[in-house]
Amino acid sequence: MREIRQPGVYPYVFSRYVEPIATVRPGETVAIYTVDAFEDQITSESETPSDILGPYLNPQTGPIFIEGAEPGDTLLARIEHIEPTRNWAVSAFIPYFGGLTATKFTRLLHEPLPERVWIYQIEDGWLRHSDRLRFPWRPFLGTIGTAPEIEAISALAPSDHGGNMDVPDVKPGNTVLLPVRVPGALFFTGDVHAGQGQGELCGVALEISAKVTITFDLIKRRPIAWPRIESPDELMTVGSARPMEDAARIAYTELIAWLEELGWDRWDAYQALTQIGSLYVGNMVDTNYSLVAKIAKAYATPSG
Amino acid sequence: MREIRQPGVYPYVFSRYVEPIATVRPGETVAIYTVDAFEDQITSESETPSDILGPYLNPQTGPIFIEGAEPGDTLLARIEHIEPTRNWAVSAFIPYFGGLTATKFTRLLHEPLPERVWIYQIEDGWLRHSDRLRFPWRPFLGTIGTAPEIEAISALAPSDHGGNMDVPDVKPGNTVLLPVRVPGALFFTGDVHAGQGQGELCGVALEISAKVTITFDLIKRRPIAWPRIESPDELMTVGSARPMEDAARIAYTELIAWLEELGWDRWDAYQALTQIGSLYVGNMVDTNYSLVAKIAKAYATPSG
Amino acid sequence: MREIRQPGVYPYVFSRYVEPIATVRPGETVAIYTVDAFEDQITSESETPSDILGPYLNPQTGPIFIEGAEPGDTLLARIEHIEPTRNWAVSAFIPYFGGLTATKFTRLLHEPLPERVWIYQIEDGWLRHSDRLRFPWRPFLGTIGTAPEIEAISALAPSDHGGNMDVPDVKPGNTVLLPVRVPGALFFTGDVHAGQGQGELCGVALEISAKVTITFDLIKRRPIAWPRIESPDELMTVGSARPMEDAARIAYTELIAWLEELGWDRWDAYQALTQIGSLYVGNMVDTNYSLVAKIAKAYATPSG
Amino acid sequence: MREIRQPGVYPYVFSRYVEPIATVRPGETVAIYTVDAFEDQITSESETPSDILGPYLNPQTGPIFIEGAEPGDTLLARIEHIEPTRNWAVSAFIPYFGGLTATKFTRLLHEPLPERVWIYQIEDGWLRHSDRLRFPWRPFLGTIGTAPEIEAISALAPSDHGGNMDVPDVKPGNTVLLPVRVPGALFFTGDVHAGQGQGELCGVALEISAKVTITFDLIKRRPIAWPRIESPDELMTVGSARPMEDAARIAYTELIAWLEELGWDRWDAYQALTQIGSLYVGNMVDTNYSLVAKIAKAYATPSG
Repeated sequence: MREIRQPGVYPYVFSRYVEPIATVRPGETVAIYTVDAFEDQITSESETPSDILGPYLNPQTGPIFIEGAEPGDTLLARIEHIEPTRNWAVSAFIPYFGGLTATKFTRLLHEPLPERVWIYQIEDGWLRHSDRLRFPWRPFLGTIGTAPEIEAISALAPSDHGGNMDVPDVKPGNTVLLPVRVPGALFFTGDVHAGQGQGELCGVALEISAKVTITFDLIKRRPIAWPRIESPDELMTVGSARPMEDAARIAYTELIAWLEELGWDRWDAYQALTQIGSLYVGNMVDTNYSLVAKIAKAYATPSG
Repeated sequence: MREIRQPGVYPYVFSRYVEPIATVRPGETVAIYTVDAFEDQITSESETPSDILGPYLNPQTGPIFIEGAEPGDTLLARIEHIEPTRNWAVSAFIPYFGGLTATKFTRLLHEPLPERVWIYQIEDGWLRHSDRLRFPWRPFLGTIGTAPEIEAISALAPSDHGGNMDVPDVKPGNTVLLPVRVPGALFFTGDVHAGQGQGELCGVALEISAKVTITFDLIKRRPIAWPRIESPDELMTVGSARPMEDAARIAYTELIAWLEELGWDRWDAYQALTQIGSLYVGNMVDTNYSLVAKIAKAYATPSG
Repeated sequence: MREIRQPGVYPYVFSRYVEPIATVRPGETVAIYTVDAFEDQITSESETPSDILGPYLNPQTGPIFIEGAEPGDTLLARIEHIEPTRNWAVSAFIPYFGGLTATKFTRLLHEPLPERVWIYQIEDGWLRHSDRLRFPWRPFLGTIGTAPEIEAISALAPSDHGGNMDVPDVKPGNTVLLPVRVPGALFFTGDVHAGQGQGELCGVALEISAKVTITFDLIKRRPIAWPRIESPDELMTVGSARPMEDAARIAYTELIAWLEELGWDRWDAYQALTQIGSLYVGNMVDTNYSLVAKIAKAYATPSG
Repeated sequence: MREIRQPGVYPYVFSRYVEPIATVRPGETVAIYTVDAFEDQITSESETPSDILGPYLNPQTGPIFIEGAEPGDTLLARIEHIEPTRNWAVSAFIPYFGGLTATKFTRLLHEPLPERVWIYQIEDGWLRHSDRLRFPWRPFLGTIGTAPEIEAISALAPSDHGGNMDVPDVKPGNTVLLPVRVPGALFFTGDVHAGQGQGELCGVALEISAKVTITFDLIKRRPIAWPRIESPDELMTVGSARPMEDAARIAYTELIAWLEELGWDRWDAYQALTQIGSLYVGNMVDTNYSLVAKIAKAYATPSG
């Protein structure tokens, strides 16, 4: 299996103007190496993130050019496997960043909350900081997406191209569907998390560097407006916006659109999701909030 | 077991100024009869809700006076059992109400979406409208709460007294913790749902009339600020506000407060919920949105 | 001119269940005495508001029963004059209350901002705290409204009944139009401000006790959905909601409705307000935010 | 005076990766030619915008390289004069775009509002569509800003670099202060409006092509976080975010910061803006909402 490593500087934006680092054929499986959201710069609990970090955050590996991908297609990225490339993960409290603090946008007059670094050891399928702070290995890709048509979007922001969604369902066994908006799609990924709760409350999950195995494929001439996820049992859509209710509206409207593509009447779909849909918060900390709407395949494609 | 039925007019507000219909002792289990959110007025798919319904919606059964309850206590309501008192449930599309429509508050210039009634038969543990629209029996209390200190809050609104939260975890086997803000607590409940997805997308779940068995208890002199839910395996807090991110902030801050009461350091709790918390949307349709934050007891009270 | 003073306890809610303190005929002018939002309890800069204040805040004078007012009518309250009944005003920083702080609803983990009282002397048409903090006398009614049909709404909250809008255009020379939802309308007012900026940033304006002269009138059988204000030169509508964009949507939609009542085509009105409307923030601190949309009468009722 | 015209394709992003079209010295006054937000493509009321317009919208003139500008400086752009280069302006209703409609982000299930084009003639200082739709000439720059450090931001979006703020105070006689984040600042402007109400309600103002006269200057080594505006009488700050209350928080916090730079104590400034600040909505339709906070210089720099 081919291995893809970033040859030079990591990109910090999703953009068509970044030079591809590799070309992949539909159907091909590759291993992609990623660094953590801090570019592996925070390594000990005695460090102060705000002294170390500048504006260049959340480095991605990419872009990867997908052969034959053209605007209007849908790119499939099946996550096969995630393997850590080191035996520890890092979390941190960063000043004016997170879900329960004043931020750059929810700008208030408070002093920042305490700054702090948390290092977890990876042992036997667990991430361990202490007896109390000990969580299972549940890896996923925090950031994944394609290049937008016009903008260069910060790797910190999720939007309709994917990006920094921080959605735990982007995990091994599931397939992410992404819009193709430029020739070759230009796929980027990074920000692997060894685990994360819904909401990513303090803004920093269990950040690791990793080797990620992905199989790419294409659906020709089927545009999608926002990212989707398919698991063995569920159909999911991701909406990213502010305020959070707009992310919820996008996610559920897109899921109705998906059901319509599967032959549903729109109003039946609206009714069905009222009774059997799921809706959870991926992140409540990034430039946009990401919400995930779901329906079990058992209800989406009943035999009737 | 004592049965409690509304003797006269159902209350449409949570208020200390409504006369109690019964008095219950801590430790007592009672059966409470409820009508559906439309006061059982919509009975067929040929009806037009906006012709039938006025401003008096979501009738509650109550208030029930809890002996010995005083402001500053916490009321426990353990949901033992929910039994339908008819063999069908109703859902509906109501003009300018729901999650994917302009509403009274998200006021826009669009014409309303189509109006419609959906009747489901209850059969063998399923709610069945058609082969496609067929969902399992997963009953819970859509509305539950106590009287606020000063206001009379519409039974359509959730807030820090509980109320119309539409949270599926208010279900048999779980205990709801509610603030006591007036003498006797003044407990109200109603709006039973035979099932509902997260978000209650169109605004109307599988509405039924029901017999609800609840055991009440009191924790003296322990005030709580917002409702909580305890299941056999999880601790949950419910925040209700707009925009939705404020509901998320309330829910997770309250869950940190709960962990602090259990002996946690605040910053450890903030870190733990980042990595292992859950956050889902109860409703995205009511006067306030309700979000539920959770932590598994296995992580909240580790042996370490 | 008849004078109306609160005979007993001030009401802290807008509710049909509060006993009227006076009856007024349409066309009558009365003088109403009000206390400040702290019920005149904070009198010196050495005091600590959080030690003094309980949950009973923003006392209103009322309700006043308007003879002949029935649900579906519109009540007109023309503000004739506002006179202070003491020679000083008070402002304050209250913990977890205000526009640039974490609050009960935007709940975060920060410590509160500093608490502080500011006393201003009224001298020669100015409010003076110091050379730097010296502002002109621009009095208005912070809180004004009628009883809702069902709820008892806290005097701290603005909504479609009016209430705590904190809109500086509720001032002498202007007429406030309020919905009548219960027999007699049940008018409440209070919370006089000697002056306030747009947004009421820290949450507490220049609070005074006052004598307010108001002429009441009725428009029979003309319901309005939200409060309106008419000045000699402008038509204004007030929307109160969260998030703030919902308040903006309500205010402008109501102003389009008003123009339609005056004979405009809906789409012409939408176009005209795009080019010539005004939209300012009354408050960004209360339970709901209040925004005011305006159009000059010169554009609303052109000779053409 | 030197005239600057776009030599080739107009840029649709604010980005450091767009080649400068001219270099200007601090102190220099230049005339800049701009096209309208539709790139002058909509010219008659019989046209259908959605047939004509693609994703490349709101073309800017630029970037203009400012000699000696370095990151950490502040760029001053004094608007001297705006002259239309044609005798008509255009407004339009665009499907799913505007303040009182479902949009890409506030995604709902409604059909779009009616689509429509409005052409206004410029005559004697007025914009005239009909006797009813007739508004004065009040020109300003809808879009103005500098290149961000990392991203390429759509010309449709306002943020901390300026951009599509749609703030009527960006007008002749006023000076816009912009952050310098890249060498040469890279100034872009366009989207001239012959007039606009606060909020830009339907999303499209009175759009014209124009000749804009601007004098540039630099303040060395004084970084600002968000755009500011200085008029002869007022200090203003612009916050752009969603939800709208976040834009309000940013604008007022930045105005407090400005007052602190002028020697104010932070808490005095918070108090002063409570009593004498202004806060209006520039746009309620763009990717972010823009709010403007103001204080009169008479209060900001009292003699005391």
